[in-house]
Amino acid sequence: MPSIFSKIIAGEIPCHKVAENGHCFAFMDIMPLAKGHVLVVPKVEVDRYFDLNEEVLAELSVFSKKIARAIESAVPCKRVGVAVIGLEVPHAHIHLIPLNSVEDINFERPKLDMSTEELSEIASLIRKEL
Amino acid sequence: MPSIFSKIIAGEIPCHKVAENGHCFAFMDIMPLAKGHVLVVPKVEVDRYFDLNEEVLAELSVFSKKIARAIESAVPCKRVGVAVIGLEVPHAHIHLIPLNSVEDINFERPKLDMSTEELSEIASLIRKEL
Repeated sequence: MPSIFSKIIAGEIPCHKVAENGHCFAFMDIMPLAKGHVLVVPKVEVDRYFDLNEEVLAELSVFSKKIARAIESAVPCKRVGVAVIGLEVPHAHIHLIPLNSVEDINFERPKLDMSTEELSEIASLIRKEL
Repeated sequence: MPSIFSKIIAGEIPCHKVAENGHCFAFMDIMPLAKGHVLVVPKVEVDRYFDLNEEVLAELSVFSKKIARAIESAVPCKRVGVAVIGLEVPHAHIHLIPLNSVEDINFERPKLDMSTEELSEIASLIRKEL
């Protein structure tokens, strides 16, 4: 059974897409820790991030740089932080989170309650910066 | 004035070294969130992670995979998590943290109080797995 991220990549579940390339796909986290929180996932369905092969890991980091730069241009923040945790969805994913303080990347905090319209608008602002 | 990490890489400040290659250097975080918490830094002194060039970003991710695999073999954990925050030391760095739950990667928690002997022993265990 495909992961929820594979279904999103395949277009079977809707998302607020930001960008994609050969191996990578980026979309808005619908349970964001901060406004502008994006998930970057490999198209290949691999549970553990460090089980990804070297080519995909390298491509994800370069792709993430492009997305992070666009987030920084679209969303006021000091810089974009990175987290890979992976204890919930069994499909490797990178969190890109606009940071103003370290509490913005605390996954134990309550998530922001953002509407579909707000998420769609931020995705659009980020895409314009790509 | 060189960053504290540049001084560590140059051997001017001691560290519990784990590994290095052309562009990358890994050593134990002396204020760990979990036993086995390692910092991976580029040798080039750049403040913001996403200001690193694509070659260095790619090499850091491949190097981090090797280190993470060794941590997973040396330290009991579900998997190794990744965080890049960078609001304190102005030299880009990747946290590799053995995770058993999401609270292990909460940077607002008090850090573990580990002795030099304990850090040295864990570094040795991780190096043996490389």
